[in-house]
Amino acid sequence: MPGSVYGNMFKISTWGESHGKGLGVVIDGCPAGVELSENDIQQDLDRRKPGTGKYTTQRSEGDLVEILSGVFNGRTTGTPISLIIFNKDQRSKDYSEISKVFRPGHADFGFHTKYGFRDYRGGGRSSARETAARVAAGAVARKILMSLGIEVKAYTRSIGNIEIDYNNFDIDERFNNAFVMPDSNAALKAEKFLDEVMRKKDSAGGIVQCEISGVKPGIGEPVFDKLDSSLAKAILSIGAVKGIEFGLGFDATKVTGLVNNDGFFYDENKNIHKYSNNSGGILGGISDGGNIIFRAAFKPTPSIASPQKTISDTGENVEIEIKGRHDPIVVARAVVVVEAMASITLLDLIFASMSSKIDYIKNYYENL
Amino acid sequence: MPGSVYGNMFKISTWGESHGKGLGVVIDGCPAGVELSENDIQQDLDRRKPGTGKYTTQRSEGDLVEILSGVFNGRTTGTPISLIIFNKDQRSKDYSEISKVFRPGHADFGFHTKYGFRDYRGGGRSSARETAARVAAGAVARKILMSLGIEVKAYTRSIGNIEIDYNNFDIDERFNNAFVMPDSNAALKAEKFLDEVMRKKDSAGGIVQCEISGVKPGIGEPVFDKLDSSLAKAILSIGAVKGIEFGLGFDATKVTGLVNNDGFFYDENKNIHKYSNNSGGILGGISDGGNIIFRAAFKPTPSIASPQKTISDTGENVEIEIKGRHDPIVVARAVVVVEAMASITLLDLIFASMSSKIDYIKNYYENL
Amino acid sequence: MPGSVYGNMFKISTWGESHGKGLGVVIDGCPAGVELSENDIQQDLDRRKPGTGKYTTQRSEGDLVEILSGVFNGRTTGTPISLIIFNKDQRSKDYSEISKVFRPGHADFGFHTKYGFRDYRGGGRSSARETAARVAAGAVARKILMSLGIEVKAYTRSIGNIEIDYNNFDIDERFNNAFVMPDSNAALKAEKFLDEVMRKKDSAGGIVQCEISGVKPGIGEPVFDKLDSSLAKAILSIGAVKGIEFGLGFDATKVTGLVNNDGFFYDENKNIHKYSNNSGGILGGISDGGNIIFRAAFKPTPSIASPQKTISDTGENVEIEIKGRHDPIVVARAVVVVEAMASITLLDLIFASMSSKIDYIKNYYENL
Amino acid sequence: MPGSVYGNMFKISTWGESHGKGLGVVIDGCPAGVELSENDIQQDLDRRKPGTGKYTTQRSEGDLVEILSGVFNGRTTGTPISLIIFNKDQRSKDYSEISKVFRPGHADFGFHTKYGFRDYRGGGRSSARETAARVAAGAVARKILMSLGIEVKAYTRSIGNIEIDYNNFDIDERFNNAFVMPDSNAALKAEKFLDEVMRKKDSAGGIVQCEISGVKPGIGEPVFDKLDSSLAKAILSIGAVKGIEFGLGFDATKVTGLVNNDGFFYDENKNIHKYSNNSGGILGGISDGGNIIFRAAFKPTPSIASPQKTISDTGENVEIEIKGRHDPIVVARAVVVVEAMASITLLDLIFASMSSKIDYIKNYYENL
Repeated sequence: MPGSVYGNMFKISTWGESHGKGLGVVIDGCPAGVELSENDIQQDLDRRKPGTGKYTTQRSEGDLVEILSGVFNGRTTGTPISLIIFNKDQRSKDYSEISKVFRPGHADFGFHTKYGFRDYRGGGRSSARETAARVAAGAVARKILMSLGIEVKAYTRSIGNIEIDYNNFDIDERFNNAFVMPDSNAALKAEKFLDEVMRKKDSAGGIVQCEISGVKPGIGEPVFDKLDSSLAKAILSIGAVKGIEFGLGFDATKVTGLVNNDGFFYDENKNIHKYSNNSGGILGGISDGGNIIFRAAFKPTPSIASPQKTISDTGENVEIEIKGRHDPIVVARAVVVVEAMASITLLDLIFASMSSKIDYIKNYYENL
Repeated sequence: MPGSVYGNMFKISTWGESHGKGLGVVIDGCPAGVELSENDIQQDLDRRKPGTGKYTTQRSEGDLVEILSGVFNGRTTGTPISLIIFNKDQRSKDYSEISKVFRPGHADFGFHTKYGFRDYRGGGRSSARETAARVAAGAVARKILMSLGIEVKAYTRSIGNIEIDYNNFDIDERFNNAFVMPDSNAALKAEKFLDEVMRKKDSAGGIVQCEISGVKPGIGEPVFDKLDSSLAKAILSIGAVKGIEFGLGFDATKVTGLVNNDGFFYDENKNIHKYSNNSGGILGGISDGGNIIFRAAFKPTPSIASPQKTISDTGENVEIEIKGRHDPIVVARAVVVVEAMASITLLDLIFASMSSKIDYIKNYYENL
Repeated sequence: MPGSVYGNMFKISTWGESHGKGLGVVIDGCPAGVELSENDIQQDLDRRKPGTGKYTTQRSEGDLVEILSGVFNGRTTGTPISLIIFNKDQRSKDYSEISKVFRPGHADFGFHTKYGFRDYRGGGRSSARETAARVAAGAVARKILMSLGIEVKAYTRSIGNIEIDYNNFDIDERFNNAFVMPDSNAALKAEKFLDEVMRKKDSAGGIVQCEISGVKPGIGEPVFDKLDSSLAKAILSIGAVKGIEFGLGFDATKVTGLVNNDGFFYDENKNIHKYSNNSGGILGGISDGGNIIFRAAFKPTPSIASPQKTISDTGENVEIEIKGRHDPIVVARAVVVVEAMASITLLDLIFASMSSKIDYIKNYYENL
Repeated sequence: MPGSVYGNMFKISTWGESHGKGLGVVIDGCPAGVELSENDIQQDLDRRKPGTGKYTTQRSEGDLVEILSGVFNGRTTGTPISLIIFNKDQRSKDYSEISKVFRPGHADFGFHTKYGFRDYRGGGRSSARETAARVAAGAVARKILMSLGIEVKAYTRSIGNIEIDYNNFDIDERFNNAFVMPDSNAALKAEKFLDEVMRKKDSAGGIVQCEISGVKPGIGEPVFDKLDSSLAKAILSIGAVKGIEFGLGFDATKVTGLVNNDGFFYDENKNIHKYSNNSGGILGGISDGGNIIFRAAFKPTPSIASPQKTISDTGENVEIEIKGRHDPIVVARAVVVVEAMASITLLDLIFASMSSKIDYIKNYYENL
């Protein structure tokens, strides 16, 4: 029945509810010898944290991470790393509104039918707050990937119908606006659009694009544990994601093979390149040397203040207006969550690749 | 390093190469007491088999499945079911063309870098022929799902730019044309389009839609092993799939929350319904009672007879024209593969749900 | 590389070092609806805790467990249960003695070679203190087993050469002496023996016997995940255990089949019994309706104050006398750890059994 | 519910019944580049095969293994290796005797209660014949271990009360007698003893000892996936095994710490040794550089021709005499099964160790 454990060799076990005592993650399988401090993790957590702007929740979550185990004298020991984030903001609220009503677009109904009852406070385990634990674990995976020369960078590609213009693309610009958009013009348009959405007590969705550089060819396991199938699971496990595509993605269905196939070529130094990267860096489930590129579709935030028709758990048709402050869009805060899940998944498959050739094993064992 | 084992409680282990002695699958975790014959499985395999038409490979694959274990007196015994399909057509061909060249759009380069060498005969393990084993296992899962009242039906939604018209939708029509399209008009257009594609020695892609009815609410495990995240992995593990979306999918990013949220209501018999099914039957990773609906994007067949630029494994830039007969489109034959992977995944999660409540466990144990 | 996650459906992930901030466990897969309080867990933890007697460590560990997640309004919610025990006693000690020396009989050398360095404070992750997390998780499993009518009871069968006399056996007596022996006479002899051992700055080992009643036939998965093979892994994973045997165990090698085989018979009410229980309640890896009976051999505590020859990590042959207070025997405190690991393992296999028949699945799904 | 899949990175999936079409195993995770032929595997299978002697079954099983996939041009490709052994001897027999009766000491009753019915022909899945698949997979693991300098050698240590004399120990002698005993005198005594046992229509058990040389320190994962806990599960999963012990094992409970602890020392070349090997080569679950040594207890063959009391599946108390030829002892044929399971387990943990240090990962990735 478990679903909160993820990964094989770099394995994470997350826990915690929105309004419980806290949330956290245990990482089992982190190699020994990685320099790691709380600050390495806090950096990523701060990117997930609600901002001061009007497009994110005002609740002061704090979200200070603490390392409880697995690090000694500043380095990982190879044993489980337990990370905890205590909830600072647990004052008892009035949950009578949602305790007996299934909010449309939420997991309330699913949890109720599956488990017979549910922790309704702030959505309990199905709250987006759960992703803080993923981000904490992802920061550890990222640190290791960085040491291998691998960079995982995601950004907001679109909000509603507003898409970034790649002629105005600047990856560093993503940290200069509230929407993590690498295009300052698009960010301005998004601001205007979201003001209107908020005025209407409504919400919006968008697309996050993730690009990973430095991945050498050969990562990903044939058949079921492909690099793309594994990433797909990782990203779709993030609440509110309704789709994923790699490289050309759905548009690949509209071009022909001649257009879609990426030809290989050697440069003068016999390094291998591709003329294009329609594959998104993955062929047959294995990295092909190109940048890994995928896009994730996030639906509009389901929590909206407008009246909605739904049902109670006691058999009545009711109308609900969801009170309290809710992000009118989750995309901006989700960017670092996408990076986290991609990092964990990629690292896990790199570890899995280490026994793919008998030569690797002999080399390891001889030098033990 | 393994990647050919899939599932937790209904676990399959597939094996086999395109031009080896055969291919097969071992199913571990099939419950005892299911009536099962080779004919149950052959039905689905026949749907995957190349047809007599000009859009599918002419090779006579035979693909007769044999049950080697796990069935006694016509019923499953609860022990592993080994299914085997011997390759009938192993005559030694001339593979000199592709043995040293990495075909664009194929996994050749990935396998070579990952393993140091590869079985190049017909693509070896990365051939689409590998999916026969999935279909065989899927037929067993489907049989069990049917007994629970669950139906898994997929069809071709589009080929290139030709999309079916839902005003002309007839699910039974899908078996009347070579493209598994539930719209006879669209099938005619697709035929014309593919004739042109073949004439140009090119290939095309398309979109497969899958709909699953009869899934009760409560299936899917929170956080990582969600119903949609698990299906995403299952479907993206099929070669040539470049994207997946559930319900409104990518279009959900362009509407607002008020539009996207599906309101619940009770009918006069206190049965629960939704006013719409934008969620594709899954909320927070758990089935919500609506039909499960997803779409998978298949890229154009990478094997094309037109000349393409690529490289050899000995350092040369070369040009290749891929000889032999290849499907100009994989979509039609992939429909049953999508159904198979969806069936296996859904069944596995139904089993996983069985221990979600202490009452279920007590009820099971007391009646043991 | 991970090794701190255990179980499939009732899955636990433990963490923590002897002298770190604390230790804990995340349980994923606990069914919803189980009444659970910290007191349920504390009871078992108190049994593991060092006593006031002279045969257990004097350090005041406190070991107060806190439930951080997964319980709402007094019942489990089906989501991960995070349990934490903060270390109260972390004053900085002088570890210079053991930081550079590999203690004989300890994991120091293994950790050093495996990870390149180690948290030497109190043994770090390899300390027996790690078992507190197992006991906490085991208490949750035990609570569920109890509701099914299953009782898991272990006791000290022998210490050194002093064995309990089954003619004087009283299971309730085990809580009346410091050695958890169900025979008051044997406990007196053990006390005398251990006084002598301690005087010689030496240590002793012993055997723990575990008996589980109420296990219906049919639990355990054929071939690899047998009930006995799974229990063997569970018990051998406890530090200091060097062997396990079921039923007659090693003595079964000295009798013949006619003696060893347990005949079945029906009583007048058509209930099934066995004339004997030499199998220890398990045949072919599946419970046979008899009580599950096994014995675990614990080696003498490796930490002793007598001088021992060993090596430093800097290339020197050295002599070490291990200072500080150490239990001269671990058996008494290990009894509840044995129960915990047995409980977790058995419960996990009960869950696994739930999908063994198609009838169970239909019954579950129809009533969903 | 599955139980026929074993291992994490070197993962095997076995299938087959005693009197079905055949049996086999799929190995997923075998590294690429291993030279492998059917002869490599047949060698070990021949050691398991019933001999011509009077102490093993007379049935001519053939047991010729065929490689169906995963090997190309004489070397493993990194993809699943499917091995099959067709049953040659499937003539329909009269099973009326055992089809409705639960044989004492057998899994019949467990299978019946677990699955509702069972393949009773020759014991079905619970027949010792199942171990042929293990031996086939073990031969592949052994080949890889050999290339790392690791040798896995098991032998019969005792039969009934007849134990080998280590003063007369000659490992090569084990292949010169029908009992795989490395002591020719003991083998003679065993022959006499078994003649008597057979005359009485009875059976006997014995102990197999396994020694593994060449294992470097650092193998085994702390806490749950220890080297010894993993081996314990592997060995206890072999039918008829009722116990396992490592190093001094149960006798360690009778000595003191000073005796039991193995001191380390450097020799003049700064190589590390131990003064003794009471640990059996494993400390804290991690290899310590000494030979791995364990013993497995096999119960007497449960199939005996003497009359036994038992029950039918239709509610009657009955008496049964098990007809047909059955080995009066399984120990001799089990020796290679013990080696197989030990080899698979050890190799799997070696692979798991490869990501234990960040330096190993960097070294791998930089040289990719």
